[in-house]
Amino acid sequence: GAASYGTSSGSVSKLIFRQLFEKESSTYTYLLADASHPDKPALLVDPVDKTVDRDLSLVKELGLKLIYAINTHVHADHVTGTGLIKSKVPGVKSIISKASNAKADLFVEPGDKICFGDLFLEVRATPGHTQGCVTYVTGDGPNQPQPRMAFTGDALLIRGCGRTDFQGGSSEQLYKSVHSQIFSLPKDTLVYPAHDYKGFTVSTVGEEMQYNPRLTKDEETFKNIMANLNLSYPKMIDVAVPANMVCGLQDVESKAA
Amino acid sequence: GAASYGTSSGSVSKLIFRQLFEKESSTYTYLLADASHPDKPALLVDPVDKTVDRDLSLVKELGLKLIYAINTHVHADHVTGTGLIKSKVPGVKSIISKASNAKADLFVEPGDKICFGDLFLEVRATPGHTQGCVTYVTGDGPNQPQPRMAFTGDALLIRGCGRTDFQGGSSEQLYKSVHSQIFSLPKDTLVYPAHDYKGFTVSTVGEEMQYNPRLTKDEETFKNIMANLNLSYPKMIDVAVPANMVCGLQDVESKAA
Ligand SMILES: [Fe+2]
Ligand SMILES: [Fe+2]
Repeated sequence: GAASYGTSSGSVSKLIFRQLFEKESSTYTYLLADASHPDKPALLVDPVDKTVDRDLSLVKELGLKLIYAINTHVHADHVTGTGLIKSKVPGVKSIISKASNAKADLFVEPGDKICFGDLFLEVRATPGHTQGCVTYVTGDGPNQPQPRMAFTGDALLIRGCGRTDFQGGSSEQLYKSVHSQIFSLPKDTLVYPAHDYKGFTVSTVGEEMQYNPRLTKDEETFKNIMANLNLSYPKMIDVAVPANMVCGLQDVESKAA
Repeated sequence: GAASYGTSSGSVSKLIFRQLFEKESSTYTYLLADASHPDKPALLVDPVDKTVDRDLSLVKELGLKLIYAINTHVHADHVTGTGLIKSKVPGVKSIISKASNAKADLFVEPGDKICFGDLFLEVRATPGHTQGCVTYVTGDGPNQPQPRMAFTGDALLIRGCGRTDFQGGSSEQLYKSVHSQIFSLPKDTLVYPAHDYKGFTVSTVGEEMQYNPRLTKDEETFKNIMANLNLSYPKMIDVAVPANMVCGLQDVESKAA
């Protein structure tokens, strides 16, 4: 990930941006902050419990004020870091979509904006991998990052997409979500997924529209592909989903009970 | 890694940029290309043999013309992809420093420029991890990427540095190299290392000057730290170094012999 971006209009976006990788679950966590604001307000997208200390030291070293810990969806392959972050940094609010039915401090719906300083993420509903999946897209405007950036969770992966056979998944819904909510973005929009298993770090909307082996197909073919993946049962799902439904705070809650 | 960069002067750099990860050796490979040139000339920094097919498909999909496969140094932990790339894409030239004493098509020395389209990498000598280590830095100029990017190999890692106990390494030399050749760059220069083991993807010169746990120390302390790392013998070194001394072409050569 790059540290900062310029805009093609000549003004410079004040985004501080870092992409962080958790090897065991191949998860990407993203740190975004507005460097132009005196507080340098920051948010983390899809933090992982195991790498919370790494992420929080980086936040501290960069002089940022973490205000939000956000999830794209209820993950089945790792425990979210949001609960742990909240216990370590008082004042941080956790965010997830209302459609996920999970616990969090704040719930977002399609069209909502998550503001940090003068920058913001726009919420787009992209269900299909899970019923509550959303994609967070950087703002469209003169002082927002250019090109735009889409944090697609597991809805759209680089040359792939998330499975649709658990957590209220639906291949029909996922197809519609990606085509209407992600492929409708400008082609140079940077695609930052929740995972990558082949070592890719970023793609673009244009690239996925042209080369995604699943989502370039017609809807029927896509549904057939998704119905015949023959994937094994997600090995972390029985631990991760209950934890993530309560924001990774299951231990804190059970200790308190 | 980000796909493209704007410049703070208002003109837009035409750099296409991708950071790629090889999990087994935790190696980063970097793809750079000039999108403004009709051929879209491209180069790969530190390609790994195991991920050559992934890298070459990406080159093809992005419509780039690969002209150079470059190494920062003779790696001891993985076999370079340069030989394999040359066998798969005729016309690609391999590049390494003259000081490495390794085989390649082209040898670079400090101050040399490696041009691809209107963009270029500048060669800086940063010995100490190995005798032949160099850092490749994007150009300084109105149409070059802003902020600048430094591909530091194992000379400077994020919050770390390469070991100095093999391959003509010297902690004294490494200390001088990093301070004189890397820490002298603008503070916002992006640091892209050859490896990361903690999931970081990028840092900046300013950040490493402030937070690198080794290189912020005085030279004597640094030398003591490096002398007392108690690292085990590099497990790939006896395979990787002989291969990398001949550009990863050991098999081709032995078959031809
Ligand atoms: Fe998921
Ligand atoms: Fe090395």
